[in-house]
Amino acid sequence: MATYHEMTNEELLKEFAEVQAKYSRMKDAGLKLDMSRGKPSSKQVDLSEGMLSVIQTNDDCFASDGTDCRNYGVLKGIPEARKLMGDIMGVPADNVVVCGNSSLAIMYDMIAHSWIDGVCGHKPWSKLDKVKFLCPVPGYDRHFAITEHFGVEMITIPMNDEGPDMDLVEKYVNNDPAVKGIWCVPKYSNPSGITYSVATVRRFAALEPAAADFRIFWDNAYCLHDLTDDLEEGDDLMDILSACKEAGHPDMVYLFASTSKISFAGGGIAAIASSETNINNFLSMLKYKIISYDKMNMLRHVRYFKNLDGVRRQMKKHAEIMRANFNLVDSVLKKGLDGTGTGTWNLPRGGYFISFNSLPGCAREIVSKAKEAGLILTEAGATFPYHHDPEDSNIRIAPSVPMYEDLKKAVKLFTICVKLVSIDKILDERKNAEK
Amino acid sequence: MATYHEMTNEELLKEFAEVQAKYSRMKDAGLKLDMSRGKPSSKQVDLSEGMLSVIQTNDDCFASDGTDCRNYGVLKGIPEARKLMGDIMGVPADNVVVCGNSSLAIMYDMIAHSWIDGVCGHKPWSKLDKVKFLCPVPGYDRHFAITEHFGVEMITIPMNDEGPDMDLVEKYVNNDPAVKGIWCVPKYSNPSGITYSVATVRRFAALEPAAADFRIFWDNAYCLHDLTDDLEEGDDLMDILSACKEAGHPDMVYLFASTSKISFAGGGIAAIASSETNINNFLSMLKYKIISYDKMNMLRHVRYFKNLDGVRRQMKKHAEIMRANFNLVDSVLKKGLDGTGTGTWNLPRGGYFISFNSLPGCAREIVSKAKEAGLILTEAGATFPYHHDPEDSNIRIAPSVPMYEDLKKAVKLFTICVKLVSIDKILDERKNAEK
Repeated sequence: MATYHEMTNEELLKEFAEVQAKYSRMKDAGLKLDMSRGKPSSKQVDLSEGMLSVIQTNDDCFASDGTDCRNYGVLKGIPEARKLMGDIMGVPADNVVVCGNSSLAIMYDMIAHSWIDGVCGHKPWSKLDKVKFLCPVPGYDRHFAITEHFGVEMITIPMNDEGPDMDLVEKYVNNDPAVKGIWCVPKYSNPSGITYSVATVRRFAALEPAAADFRIFWDNAYCLHDLTDDLEEGDDLMDILSACKEAGHPDMVYLFASTSKISFAGGGIAAIASSETNINNFLSMLKYKIISYDKMNMLRHVRYFKNLDGVRRQMKKHAEIMRANFNLVDSVLKKGLDGTGTGTWNLPRGGYFISFNSLPGCAREIVSKAKEAGLILTEAGATFPYHHDPEDSNIRIAPSVPMYEDLKKAVKLFTICVKLVSIDKILDERKNAEK
Repeated sequence: MATYHEMTNEELLKEFAEVQAKYSRMKDAGLKLDMSRGKPSSKQVDLSEGMLSVIQTNDDCFASDGTDCRNYGVLKGIPEARKLMGDIMGVPADNVVVCGNSSLAIMYDMIAHSWIDGVCGHKPWSKLDKVKFLCPVPGYDRHFAITEHFGVEMITIPMNDEGPDMDLVEKYVNNDPAVKGIWCVPKYSNPSGITYSVATVRRFAALEPAAADFRIFWDNAYCLHDLTDDLEEGDDLMDILSACKEAGHPDMVYLFASTSKISFAGGGIAAIASSETNINNFLSMLKYKIISYDKMNMLRHVRYFKNLDGVRRQMKKHAEIMRANFNLVDSVLKKGLDGTGTGTWNLPRGGYFISFNSLPGCAREIVSKAKEAGLILTEAGATFPYHHDPEDSNIRIAPSVPMYEDLKKAVKLFTICVKLVSIDKILDERKNAEK
């Protein structure tokens, strides 16, 4: 089969008519499908049912050090929860503070803390004329939303197969003192699914920031979220906390993680890990904000999972559920689009997303056409700062929630929208070229 | 018996020797007692054991509107939790957002939001030359710690039997545009136990602030925390949200409350209530910070307490436990100090504290002497901004945690310290007067 670009106008118009007919039929079916958010499915949250009954009596409520988890106290979180989250993040418990149910909230609080108090004694960011953040793209919309909300200037950094373009990162970080941070999802990156290579992590650790209060925001949201058949084959991410220490920059990175996609997305526990200096600086703010986070939920997690092995066993079950959905999306995309030259995508080895790149200038229109027929996709541009994808090409597909039959329909409809918009685009371009 | 002030030097020295002997004996006993923090006792957190097992299976995890509480979503909290917290606070559910386990954290976040973003479109407080807060004294140390942390200038307002001195409050609020807020614990005030009168609440509602972004921080931490024999006899607090609305200032107040001293101090739920405008303004920040708070814990609370009546039944049990401790403190204080003229205190009708006022200039020394003998008290001055009690007289006694025998010893030791320091003070004053 010829790609759409190779087809004549006549052939394209014929193809358009056929695809349009399918689109109309699907639209008439009154579908209600959603592939917009990276959240676990019901089946996945069902997996942690055992956690609901792991604490039943008053006697069950004490941490290993005797702390009554029902009462006030222990700002850093109970020791066994710090250990578990440390193991999940690959860092020692001493470097960990366990907070509430949201790692995003910790990131927000850390930016707010930098804004209000400054980082480790440096000038508060609110007092600076300009604060800049580097934003690898495509990236996580909620990261960019936080920095946009604070009025931080966001600079896009293209992603390649090994992570962000490190030449660019070095250029900005090492020369511009207004660059105070970079957002990273280093493993099974949201949405492209890439894991940063050893070389990339080493280059991060070797940065020589122009700003002493520059920090890497290392959001390791998918640290154990492999989708490979054999989880042992999952990607390895180099330990950046040690790498930074070895490179002489022990305070350059904050790590974040949560059990949102391990236990319950709305009722997990979240943590930050960093150097002793950074953790103490964080606590110097936190002690004004809260007496202690919910230790009962920390204890529930530790009692249920017991240790990292317990978490890994759970992740295997998640992977089995997720893998079926990812494979389905891939096969329906292949069936619908292979040979048309209308888009590229990855089948990631982990994480929650498939990143789709349409022909330039088509993404918004595809998302809008899908919506018209009852399929909600993540807003086009969402994976870019200021919602501006200069190529108007990237679409984040989140295949975790829909059930098999729905997902099949949703992706099929998606391919139909891609085709319609692509043909329109190609015909338009030809028309314009003739002028 | 003569008061200490009426005694001759000789009599005082004789009394001192007797009391000093008792002090030495108690010090030698190697006591380890703590009356420093307002936290529930083990017995009290034991009361909510039933909550631990109220959600057991996956099917139990759905809110009344079908929301899966295990998953992401519902920024404001589930409807039934908003209803319950609204009932506890005496406001409609529509005005309520339920957050995490700490009302202090909501207050902190609200100050941070005002600092970073500004209140409802007004200039961010971080951009102002000066921000001032009114601080009724004695008051809650953690309130003052937050505003001190933000560099807010704190102005003390004396408390009287009906609440803060409203003449002063009106003078500052209605004339100084730098005054942006006031901290209030309107019912069973921390530490003095006073409930604001109807006249006081009406005067609050009738304030005509010089600053359009002035807000009352109404921390109703002890809204249901009566200690009266018949709880129906507990204090009534006028509904300030309605009062402000009626007075034409619907947006002037934020209300805060939590179940920290109802269910679990470390694992409760907390809420903010305010006008629709203020709530929307709060949410306009919150949506960047978090996807949703822990709905599982909200559901656990609603399932366990069912409704306000359920909460009231629990508060009755709390009161029975607490009342014994409060009565004991009162009787030991009376036995030790009555007639000496060395201090005054209240037996409050609710709340968590007994506020003790020593002779001027004695509080720090009393706390330090107690510590030397193994009794931890709240730091003297803690109930004042900047830890500065100009009279050096107020000591906050928190009698909830120690068990009966320990509490008896602790208060006895306290009275001994009060006597020793008071005699020292009186003798010193006489000596200085002679010079």
